[in-house]
Amino acid sequence: MASRSPRLLSLARRAFSSSSSSQANGVSLVQGASRGIGLEFVKQLLEKNDEGHVVATCRNPDASTGLLRLKDRFDDRLQILPLDLTVESSIEASALSIKETYGHLNLLINASGILSIPEVLQPETTLNKLEKSSLMLAYEVNAVGPILVIKHMWPLLKAGGGIGTERSGAVVASLSARVASIGDNRLGGWHSYRSSKTALNQLSKTISLEFARKKDPIICILLHPGTVDTDLSKPFQKNIAKEKLFTKEYSVQKLLHIINNVKNNDNGKFFGWDGQEIPW
Amino acid sequence: MASRSPRLLSLARRAFSSSSSSQANGVSLVQGASRGIGLEFVKQLLEKNDEGHVVATCRNPDASTGLLRLKDRFDDRLQILPLDLTVESSIEASALSIKETYGHLNLLINASGILSIPEVLQPETTLNKLEKSSLMLAYEVNAVGPILVIKHMWPLLKAGGGIGTERSGAVVASLSARVASIGDNRLGGWHSYRSSKTALNQLSKTISLEFARKKDPIICILLHPGTVDTDLSKPFQKNIAKEKLFTKEYSVQKLLHIINNVKNNDNGKFFGWDGQEIPW
Repeated sequence: MASRSPRLLSLARRAFSSSSSSQANGVSLVQGASRGIGLEFVKQLLEKNDEGHVVATCRNPDASTGLLRLKDRFDDRLQILPLDLTVESSIEASALSIKETYGHLNLLINASGILSIPEVLQPETTLNKLEKSSLMLAYEVNAVGPILVIKHMWPLLKAGGGIGTERSGAVVASLSARVASIGDNRLGGWHSYRSSKTALNQLSKTISLEFARKKDPIICILLHPGTVDTDLSKPFQKNIAKEKLFTKEYSVQKLLHIINNVKNNDNGKFFGWDGQEIPW
Repeated sequence: MASRSPRLLSLARRAFSSSSSSQANGVSLVQGASRGIGLEFVKQLLEKNDEGHVVATCRNPDASTGLLRLKDRFDDRLQILPLDLTVESSIEASALSIKETYGHLNLLINASGILSIPEVLQPETTLNKLEKSSLMLAYEVNAVGPILVIKHMWPLLKAGGGIGTERSGAVVASLSARVASIGDNRLGGWHSYRSSKTALNQLSKTISLEFARKKDPIICILLHPGTVDTDLSKPFQKNIAKEKLFTKEYSVQKLLHIINNVKNNDNGKFFGWDGQEIPW
């Protein structure tokens, strides 16, 4: 059953879309959507237009009450898929499912990211505390995973481009962080997180050059969301001035504004929530 | 026997050094010294001054004819130790051995690096060819390994500083590459190598900030050796203009000039072989 119904659904949707504007606002994939900024992206993408479709992925969808609640409200426009960034076959399976259901993608948001996991990963305060396992895990999840998602979604993004949206191309927006900037690094610390996000920046830039050279209708950008009140930042909020700690709603609103107004020559760039470019 | 002799040797050397200038040119560690640029660093460090001591490490010293030949010429000033970058305990063992023999370090050169290994790692020409295993391996060897070496040599470098040399502090020089620059990335490709070296840049910068904050007498820099005629670059030389393909001798001469003239405010910077700063 599972192997046939997505294809039927796909055919049905394509027939439908050719006679209506059901995909007028495109098909968006939010990877890392169970909570925090990713979940908020899903919510705003669904709420802010009446017709766009959203695919939300996370490791264990059944455990995301936030996603399940959105599914109740937007059943026909939200598809939830399990995707474990550390298992490439699960990324491929998601790509296949999206291909069968929609045939293309117009937006990919890489929203996943790890900074601290109790007893596994701690943001380092000194070189003495560097652990190989932490460096490798942060790299695997924060840099390698999102890039493998882009790799497998590439054909779908190429097929989608900006068609059915007001953008000039498909957009790949990966969440980086200001602390990934080497030039702007003044405090040190957080070695594993920093270097993994810096590597993500380099990988994203590298990929953007190939998209440009091949004239693929894809614009690949990096985004710094600000310091946002999420589970990720919770242990580190005590030194943040109140006005600098954003709500998820505010940050995602700003980031969607950047995404929706992106130009071809923004390909390969790194933007803060305020639209300002961040140095490498 | 093995457990006692290094300590005896250490005591003997310390006694000797207090009554002579045997360490007047310091103790240098070259990590990744079996061949190529690393081996050439060992050679020039030994040849260019009469009294400096050099510790050369590589995975399998017995297989490095180059190192063994230098050992024949400079038996009393060259110590060769086995060190596998991917095995942290072997880094710790080297640090312990250096501590017992010399008690300190004045220079650490991280010269190791992998770009291609037949049937294991190939510099990628397109996103389609990205393999998780390649990304992880390049990161482990090119970024994590050198940083773990710095971590374990840190107390020795702090103890050494610039004492017995003409430099104002101990120097940590890690071999990066121009392709690690995100701002200067115009060609794309080589994803695994690029991102691992970019991460090395970020880690090195992060560490340099801690050294500065703690007023440790250590200057931490990154070096781009140019395209050098070594086994690493061999498969990629056909598109390089002859005058841009350096001999090991020339490149290492240039890099040693930078190292020997480094200033405190160079800490955390990234230099090309010509002494010009490279953008992040």
